[in-house]
Amino acid sequence: MKPALIRALEGETLARPPIWFMRQAGRTLPEYRTLRETAPDFMAFCHDPEKAAEATLQPMRRFPLSAAIVFADILLLPKALGQEVWFEAGEGPRLGALPSIEALRGEVEASTARLASIGETLKLVRAQLEPDRALIGFAGAPWTVATYMLEGRGSERDAARTYAYTHPDELDALIDVLVDGTIRYLVMQANAGAQALKIFESWAENLPEDLFERIVIQPHRKIVEGLRKAGVTVPVIGFPRGAPGLVELYADRAGTNAVALDVGVSAEAGRRIQKTKTIQGSLDPLLLRAGGPALDARVDQLIEQWGDGPYVFNLGHGLLPDTPIPHIDRTIRRVVGS
Amino acid sequence: MKPALIRALEGETLARPPIWFMRQAGRTLPEYRTLRETAPDFMAFCHDPEKAAEATLQPMRRFPLSAAIVFADILLLPKALGQEVWFEAGEGPRLGALPSIEALRGEVEASTARLASIGETLKLVRAQLEPDRALIGFAGAPWTVATYMLEGRGSERDAARTYAYTHPDELDALIDVLVDGTIRYLVMQANAGAQALKIFESWAENLPEDLFERIVIQPHRKIVEGLRKAGVTVPVIGFPRGAPGLVELYADRAGTNAVALDVGVSAEAGRRIQKTKTIQGSLDPLLLRAGGPALDARVDQLIEQWGDGPYVFNLGHGLLPDTPIPHIDRTIRRVVGS
Repeated sequence: MKPALIRALEGETLARPPIWFMRQAGRTLPEYRTLRETAPDFMAFCHDPEKAAEATLQPMRRFPLSAAIVFADILLLPKALGQEVWFEAGEGPRLGALPSIEALRGEVEASTARLASIGETLKLVRAQLEPDRALIGFAGAPWTVATYMLEGRGSERDAARTYAYTHPDELDALIDVLVDGTIRYLVMQANAGAQALKIFESWAENLPEDLFERIVIQPHRKIVEGLRKAGVTVPVIGFPRGAPGLVELYADRAGTNAVALDVGVSAEAGRRIQKTKTIQGSLDPLLLRAGGPALDARVDQLIEQWGDGPYVFNLGHGLLPDTPIPHIDRTIRRVVGS
Repeated sequence: MKPALIRALEGETLARPPIWFMRQAGRTLPEYRTLRETAPDFMAFCHDPEKAAEATLQPMRRFPLSAAIVFADILLLPKALGQEVWFEAGEGPRLGALPSIEALRGEVEASTARLASIGETLKLVRAQLEPDRALIGFAGAPWTVATYMLEGRGSERDAARTYAYTHPDELDALIDVLVDGTIRYLVMQANAGAQALKIFESWAENLPEDLFERIVIQPHRKIVEGLRKAGVTVPVIGFPRGAPGLVELYADRAGTNAVALDVGVSAEAGRRIQKTKTIQGSLDPLLLRAGGPALDARVDQLIEQWGDGPYVFNLGHGLLPDTPIPHIDRTIRRVVGS
């Protein structure tokens, strides 16, 4: 039987929406924190198929989630392309100097081989996951990955957006390399068992429409076209986070099967997108953490407003590490109706 | 002759859009930095009509701007309501403990008298400003002001949004007090010569639709209704910053004459709003700072896409302090066609 998530992503309206949470695997779970103690280096952890598969499966054992998402990080790709990447404890990612475009381009083919462990993780997870639960692969979107590569860290994006204005040709060249690397990486993930693929554009906020078209919509479109050309037929979810005013344009033009919606997208915009695409989202992670009657009411409202079209329940952003587990469990059970 | 800004805000389509910039007065100008040295305490500076009027007029002398906006701060109101407010150099605002709702409510009437110096500033500016250039008064919107009052600072809003979920009645009571205080404050400003009023909802980002309706749209609507009830007829501009996915709902329901648009609002959404309201915005402040051919092209594009409806040229957010003055001057002249 085809997993509910895949049916929804292919456009089917289900009696109850499938559900998964961005960052469902990770720091929220005590068993993850225990597992991480066995491999303190985060990049090494992501590249260890046994450990990454275990992290991927941990939330699946605890909760009646509809899908698992492979445990990995969007910065594995720049590292595989030859830029130094490391994580400072409590400070997030740090990146070394940006290699030249020629150097990066020369590493695109090799980068996929350097990411082979993620394929191994997918195979291990798929072998252990029930057939009615889907497995999702993912990559960071080119612009988002470029912001880290250009700024050397993840805390702000002003320098990268300024670079988009002052060095358009250089940015376009960098994005082209990332598009190529991302297509290969996602093809590999699909071949290793990913039944859906998600493109995370985590930093689409504050982009004006012309820039959004150039550095978000067009690269996403090229990635989807590249996947199809390579024979990958699994559904693709696009997530232009922080751009709720441009998400309908995105849905029209980016070519993904489904669009993940941020917290600030209106019910009406979601319904308009549902006419041609599946939507996913957009519970406020702060509300899931806060819990209480407001949480239950909002969960019901989201299902009410979007549940009669193709819809996947999810957050509008990642699960916060200090979210109480009972809130997660209660919400998932409320959505699936168990 | 009625200033171009007022004609545009009243719904007229002009041959060239009027232009002003959020934060046009202030740190970008060397003459402002010199002026501030004479009054290092920021709150005292705002309450000094001579100095605040001078700061308001400085950009009007340099640039062919269509309007001045009174030099003040959105945190003058909580201070006038009895909460301690001060500015740490280089760190932004700090607020003391939140008074009880009863204490705040008891100060609403007195708060307007404590803000009388802002009325004096407006009178001084109006006396010196050419009749064809408009004078704008403003206030912070209740939710935005509440975030500062609840969190004690301006750097993040997660605690305030969590409070909105966990303490809805307490937040609604705080917002009601702020609605009352804001109406009185804006009535006073209109009586002192403000020809348009702007409500700054600087922190509307990441709000889901239900919360946005409750803590943004409804309070703004009450403010506009309160102004009209008090006989104030000047146009009101609402600015729900950070909520480009909900701005059309806002335009439909908040009752303002004009809606200021953030950077990430689509051309199409702006045109839909223009059917019933004036729009203002939404040049990226980073692009104004960056300058170059991309800036000129975007300025022309904004006028092309919105100039055939009621439109006020502005930024999508405040002017950045390190914006080169030639970029500002060039852009204003390009818009006004001088």
